[in-house]
Amino acid sequence: MRIVITGGAGFLGSRLTRALLALRGAEGGLPAFDGILSVDLAPSPVDDPRVASVVGDIADPAFAREVIGAETAGVYHLAAVLSGGSEEDFDLGMRVNLDGTRALLEAARATGRAPRFVFASSVAVFGGALPEVVPEATAVMPASSYGAQKAMGELLVNDYSRKGFVDGRACRLPTIVVRPGKPNSATSSFASGIIREPLAGQPSNLPVPMGTRLWLSSPDTVVANLVHAMALDGGRIGAWRVLNLPGICVTPAEMLASLERVGGPAARALVTERRDERIAGIVLSWPGDFEVDRLLGLGFRRDADFDGVVRQYRDEFVS
Amino acid sequence: MRIVITGGAGFLGSRLTRALLALRGAEGGLPAFDGILSVDLAPSPVDDPRVASVVGDIADPAFAREVIGAETAGVYHLAAVLSGGSEEDFDLGMRVNLDGTRALLEAARATGRAPRFVFASSVAVFGGALPEVVPEATAVMPASSYGAQKAMGELLVNDYSRKGFVDGRACRLPTIVVRPGKPNSATSSFASGIIREPLAGQPSNLPVPMGTRLWLSSPDTVVANLVHAMALDGGRIGAWRVLNLPGICVTPAEMLASLERVGGPAARALVTERRDERIAGIVLSWPGDFEVDRLLGLGFRRDADFDGVVRQYRDEFVS
Ligand SMILES: NC(=O)c1ccc[n+]([C@@H]2O[C@H](COP(=O)([O-])OP(=O)(O)OC[C@H]3O[C@@H](n4cnc5c(N)ncnc54)[C@H](O)[C@@H]3O)[C@@H](O)[C@H]2O)c1
Ligand SMILES: NC(=O)c1ccc[n+]([C@@H]2O[C@H](COP(=O)([O-])OP(=O)(O)OC[C@H]3O[C@@H](n4cnc5c(N)ncnc54)[C@H](O)[C@@H]3O)[C@@H](O)[C@H]2O)c1
Repeated sequence: MRIVITGGAGFLGSRLTRALLALRGAEGGLPAFDGILSVDLAPSPVDDPRVASVVGDIADPAFAREVIGAETAGVYHLAAVLSGGSEEDFDLGMRVNLDGTRALLEAARATGRAPRFVFASSVAVFGGALPEVVPEATAVMPASSYGAQKAMGELLVNDYSRKGFVDGRACRLPTIVVRPGKPNSATSSFASGIIREPLAGQPSNLPVPMGTRLWLSSPDTVVANLVHAMALDGGRIGAWRVLNLPGICVTPAEMLASLERVGGPAARALVTERRDERIAGIVLSWPGDFEVDRLLGLGFRRDADFDGVVRQYRDEFVS
Repeated sequence: MRIVITGGAGFLGSRLTRALLALRGAEGGLPAFDGILSVDLAPSPVDDPRVASVVGDIADPAFAREVIGAETAGVYHLAAVLSGGSEEDFDLGMRVNLDGTRALLEAARATGRAPRFVFASSVAVFGGALPEVVPEATAVMPASSYGAQKAMGELLVNDYSRKGFVDGRACRLPTIVVRPGKPNSATSSFASGIIREPLAGQPSNLPVPMGTRLWLSSPDTVVANLVHAMALDGGRIGAWRVLNLPGICVTPAEMLASLERVGGPAARALVTERRDERIAGIVLSWPGDFEVDRLLGLGFRRDADFDGVVRQYRDEFVS
């Protein structure tokens, strides 16, 4: 039996693949599996005999039925056109993020075994005026096509679960920091950039106010939470299957203090502060903090502090 | 130019058709139109030279493109598989309520003129634990496929509006009482039945507690609100296009008191009170009351009292 990971070649998908392999069945509650099937437009970068890759488009229902079947122990659905891409190409976002999610749910339903199905949603489902600390029962009012498509995916995962077609869990991921690699077109790119670039001796600019509240998770923590989301017994989650994964509420001021403590004053000095009105406008509308007590009670976790987040990146990526 | 009404042959669609014709352009703000195009599986029952009917399935994208085009002044999208039907036949509900809504939005987008698009949603999008009086920013947690499909429709209407593809308004309708005709499989059927049957000299049973709070609107009021939803300037609604249409919060005890005042004690005596656990369980989970001040400020209305709702039905349907 294999765990299917769509988006298995991506940033989180490849880390999740490694994390699941490292567990070797140690995490109680996970469905039994002896391999990972990566489903993506590209092959998995993880070189391990227990990892197989199928390359194809999840929005093609025939392909979805090919990759999910009798051998499927559980499904992680991470493949997506991200925020910038879905805003630029509306039809592509609808096809991959909505039709693709539906095709995978249909394929899972067709197995007749209601497999566990973990869907990566995002706090981008939120928009409009929000309370300082966002409770679980807050209306989603997405201000992007990406957010709207993720919100529809959540409704699908939930209703397919209610009907007994899958045993679903829709996890709203915080912004993941520090993302390795280059700056990208995502509005949140600066949140990784102001740590990553200075640690590499490069300048980086902060386009939002020092006091902006950001809702963040490190890659390791979010991967641990995704593993837990699959391992958790459905009865403990309750009827409504949407989970605001825990994060930490941090400001750029606090992030840069961590950078200075972990990377030294020279690194900190590489960050400039030139406000970008377009970016600031969007980021200031994002939810900065969430009620997470119920989720922590369910065994989900969050980073202890931002110093640890910076160290996690430095230890893995900075030689 | 014509106003398109999908579900034009249905209960609300046919009443809306008559109401729009009766206005003869009198309601300020409506797009100019000289006829109505009813789009339904059956022809419109309204016999008027200004009403044309096309019979077909809105879930067929080619059909949707046929009925919405250069001649379209605005769209009312009321066609739907209702709650009982979508729960019984999941795939049919998905096809009509989700794919159908998307096909119509795509057809409207293809006109390139961002027509006004009024979508009939429902308070069935709500579920789970709810506050006594439901604020606008309350999360939807649908407990039925009908509710999930309506919630996805709202997200579509909203995002198509944000993108400038349509000028949309998603109206969450209260339960409509008194619905003429026979009892049906809808869980809310009793709410009309306990008025309609006694006024026709027939017995009727109340399956929920006397104190259950129900959120109701008369057909005339909801039709007036649908007209207003099309007439209203988009700028006044704001970025988020989902509207909890006003209703009144009434209990069966109050409804039966109205029945006695309007129909007499003999009518009242025809209503028995045998609790049905299945129906009571569902109905008690429905939202009973909503914050509507902003909507009333936008010019939407509600029934003055339930006596008027009973009289409206009696005057039209009881000889
Ligand atoms: N990283 C974050 O900060 C963050 C935050 C919230 C939510 N998420 C969600 O987590 C998931 C993973 O994010 P990530 O950061 O790893 O993104 P990523 O872009 O690195 O990975 C996404 C993967 O999906 C694949 N993909 C795209 N379209 C596909 C298609 N049609 N068929 C098959 N594969 C396709 C891409 O090739 C890519 O490998 C996404 O669903 C994303 O929306 C991420
Ligand atoms: N009546 C209520 O209490 C209430 C409450 C909340 C929301 N609504 C919504 O209001 C709208 C109208 O409700 P109604 O009470 O008039 O229902 P209705 O059943 O009388 O009308 C719905 C119409 O849609 C048509 N239809 C169904 N599938 C179709 C398809 N594939 N293609 C074309 N037409 C199709 C049916 O033939 C029917 O005439 C619906 O969207 C409903 O969900 C009604």
